[in-house]
Amino acid sequence: MTWGHPRVPHGQSILSVSQYGRTAVEDLFDVIDRKDWGDCTGKIIANLFYEPSTRTSSSFHAAMLKLGGNVIPINEVTYSSVSKGETLEDTIRTLGCYVDAIVLRHPDDDAALVAHKVSSVPIVNAGCGSGEHPTQALLDLYTIYKENHTIDGLTVTLMGDLRYGRTVHSLVQLLGYFNVKIQFVSPPDLRIPGKYAKMGTIVELNDVLSTTDVLYLTRVQKERHTDHASIFEPLEADYAAAPFSYGITEEHMASAKRGLTLMHPLPRLSEIPKEIDSDPRAAYFRQVRYGLDVRMALLSGILQED
Amino acid sequence: MTWGHPRVPHGQSILSVSQYGRTAVEDLFDVIDRKDWGDCTGKIIANLFYEPSTRTSSSFHAAMLKLGGNVIPINEVTYSSVSKGETLEDTIRTLGCYVDAIVLRHPDDDAALVAHKVSSVPIVNAGCGSGEHPTQALLDLYTIYKENHTIDGLTVTLMGDLRYGRTVHSLVQLLGYFNVKIQFVSPPDLRIPGKYAKMGTIVELNDVLSTTDVLYLTRVQKERHTDHASIFEPLEADYAAAPFSYGITEEHMASAKRGLTLMHPLPRLSEIPKEIDSDPRAAYFRQVRYGLDVRMALLSGILQED
Amino acid sequence: MTWGHPRVPHGQSILSVSQYGRTAVEDLFDVIDRKDWGDCTGKIIANLFYEPSTRTSSSFHAAMLKLGGNVIPINEVTYSSVSKGETLEDTIRTLGCYVDAIVLRHPDDDAALVAHKVSSVPIVNAGCGSGEHPTQALLDLYTIYKENHTIDGLTVTLMGDLRYGRTVHSLVQLLGYFNVKIQFVSPPDLRIPGKYAKMGTIVELNDVLSTTDVLYLTRVQKERHTDHASIFEPLEADYAAAPFSYGITEEHMASAKRGLTLMHPLPRLSEIPKEIDSDPRAAYFRQVRYGLDVRMALLSGILQED
Repeated sequence: MTWGHPRVPHGQSILSVSQYGRTAVEDLFDVIDRKDWGDCTGKIIANLFYEPSTRTSSSFHAAMLKLGGNVIPINEVTYSSVSKGETLEDTIRTLGCYVDAIVLRHPDDDAALVAHKVSSVPIVNAGCGSGEHPTQALLDLYTIYKENHTIDGLTVTLMGDLRYGRTVHSLVQLLGYFNVKIQFVSPPDLRIPGKYAKMGTIVELNDVLSTTDVLYLTRVQKERHTDHASIFEPLEADYAAAPFSYGITEEHMASAKRGLTLMHPLPRLSEIPKEIDSDPRAAYFRQVRYGLDVRMALLSGILQED
Repeated sequence: MTWGHPRVPHGQSILSVSQYGRTAVEDLFDVIDRKDWGDCTGKIIANLFYEPSTRTSSSFHAAMLKLGGNVIPINEVTYSSVSKGETLEDTIRTLGCYVDAIVLRHPDDDAALVAHKVSSVPIVNAGCGSGEHPTQALLDLYTIYKENHTIDGLTVTLMGDLRYGRTVHSLVQLLGYFNVKIQFVSPPDLRIPGKYAKMGTIVELNDVLSTTDVLYLTRVQKERHTDHASIFEPLEADYAAAPFSYGITEEHMASAKRGLTLMHPLPRLSEIPKEIDSDPRAAYFRQVRYGLDVRMALLSGILQED
Repeated sequence: MTWGHPRVPHGQSILSVSQYGRTAVEDLFDVIDRKDWGDCTGKIIANLFYEPSTRTSSSFHAAMLKLGGNVIPINEVTYSSVSKGETLEDTIRTLGCYVDAIVLRHPDDDAALVAHKVSSVPIVNAGCGSGEHPTQALLDLYTIYKENHTIDGLTVTLMGDLRYGRTVHSLVQLLGYFNVKIQFVSPPDLRIPGKYAKMGTIVELNDVLSTTDVLYLTRVQKERHTDHASIFEPLEADYAAAPFSYGITEEHMASAKRGLTLMHPLPRLSEIPKEIDSDPRAAYFRQVRYGLDVRMALLSGILQED
């Protein structure tokens, strides 16, 4: 890998954060800052979701509408026996006859790449298997940049389920392009995998809270904690098997930097109590809003060139 | 409550008919008569339906499209264990980053108010629990007004399940602003609750048919009567437990006023036989059409101001 | 029936291929060739699908968006007991208040006609029961015409499940307007019904391969062949009961005409192996693309006149 070099391969598809070197990231963020995206009137995307994720699909849907384009939502994909039969490749080739790009969520790690190989239109990986979720990682990084007016020089602490969280894996990869101190906080069973672990240090929250610029939390499943249904990201089954209890508290916030950026990809459960929402350092809903801009820039980019 | 006074509180959200006094209702109807609604090009609403109601969601969807705006339909919300976790508040805050207003149907009575309290965009109550369904009540009242060119002076008879029908409860409240004679016809078990009962008189249909200007029927469940699936409003479970048999017949129509307005919120079952559809006094499909105008006016109103 | 005469009855609804005589087909194809369809800005259709068919609904959705119009997708129709109650007629009358045309898929053979009789807006039959699927047949015929620059004089061989395939039945009817030699290849249990059989000859593939201009295959279910879910057409239950094994092979393609048009309504299973996709004679994905143009022309036609 050529860290830090400008890239963006794979035709116009967005498959992996590894397509983005430092220069490509900086160019993208410059486009977003200037809201310098083109009009997509007359363009159509398909939101092809083999797994439900209303959060992500709504974000792409809104981004496309705000660009002037349109969306065909295909959310009802099921694995029932009655609908068995067609390969992903044929589905992609068919949809490619109707739309200008396909936003794909799929349970298989390699689905985006498989789709890209046969597709006549760009594929956007909106989360496939336990692999990549590149647009989420780019919006996370953009949030860090917007909240701090820089990325270089920051101390970023990632906390929670670092083992299964594809969001975290992709974000660590992007942070590697910058001069950032990376720290990991997690229960032993949910440690960051080795290939990412070497890019940072495993620490305890209390030891690093006062020096952390960005604290990025991920979901924790506390059994039977919830009383509302999430319409957004379903929780991975693994959580249910290994519930554990921790999170950030108001006491933690009191010890943290005044300029802290507290982030979370949402949905959050007990790991961030509601009381913290009114703290100006709680950036997770601004993160949602930045995500819309990031996806507008990305969609506009791939749709303008064809 | 200040009956008859102009109101419309709660920011721009539409939560309850109690926001509308007589003056506010008259102003609204004047807007609808003149089709004096603004263009909503570039605006987006989310149709967030935790309960299926294709009838209501289609109506809002069509209204928004006709205003030039767009809709993100979120109909697949389920209570499956896998999707549990996020609070309604967080869902609303997230969607508020994407859209300009949220149309909400939810099984909890207080959901619209809960949503409104945390929302950065207007909430439209599209039926929550057994409580309010304000846009339905407003379209019912508008239908009465259009069919009769007035509301004051009319005799309105409400018939059917008056106990559980949130539509009826909201309509009675609105009728209270006007000089209207209200009558209730229902089986003993499905009588109008006390707080509304005192606004009218409990009667028998045959005693009042010849003097009724508006006859408003609601659903009756006759067991195994149906052979088609409704794609619209699901029937409340209570009906199944207490089926009963009655409705309006061609003989009733022969005894009714020549100028009668026969209304129904739909779906109708056996309480209005098909043969009556061709009677010019059968107003229930015109009622559907008026509903589109009412919702265009309401959506335009809340979206223009922000 | 008056074969070959110009027709297109039933108001503006598209219910059956029998509405199209030779002249009407030729006029339609001329419109498509010249892409001479009108703008549908401000028009709305409902995609009312009582059976899932993402392939067909996406095609109509994309066609309408490309015409400048909008779509209300109603895909979640279920037959659960909780949603029972409303007749198809009432559903159609309600939707007719909201939209300019209704695209209907339904399990009952006569649903499109039933809907048409009560509808205030045109109905498009998008496949009802085991009966008609007229827009599929028209796009199949248009594909034959585009790939061969003619229809008259061709030898067309239809192969697969000719008994249950409504697509095949409608196509045979349309081919009857032209000077075409029709041949049928199928297992004994899945033979073409008598009324269509007399329009062609029952043959063996190897006997006719070298003289066939158009080879039209339909789905074959090989048990447990599949590992991906189809998001498109569900397979008929009958297939599962009577699986059989055959299809077209590379060897067959080597013996076939250089100018062969190989068609399939998709989804395909094992009856056409992937290796054949790169053969320029494999026309099935071009067929998908032609379908978009055909549906744009048909929708534009029925929406312009009102």
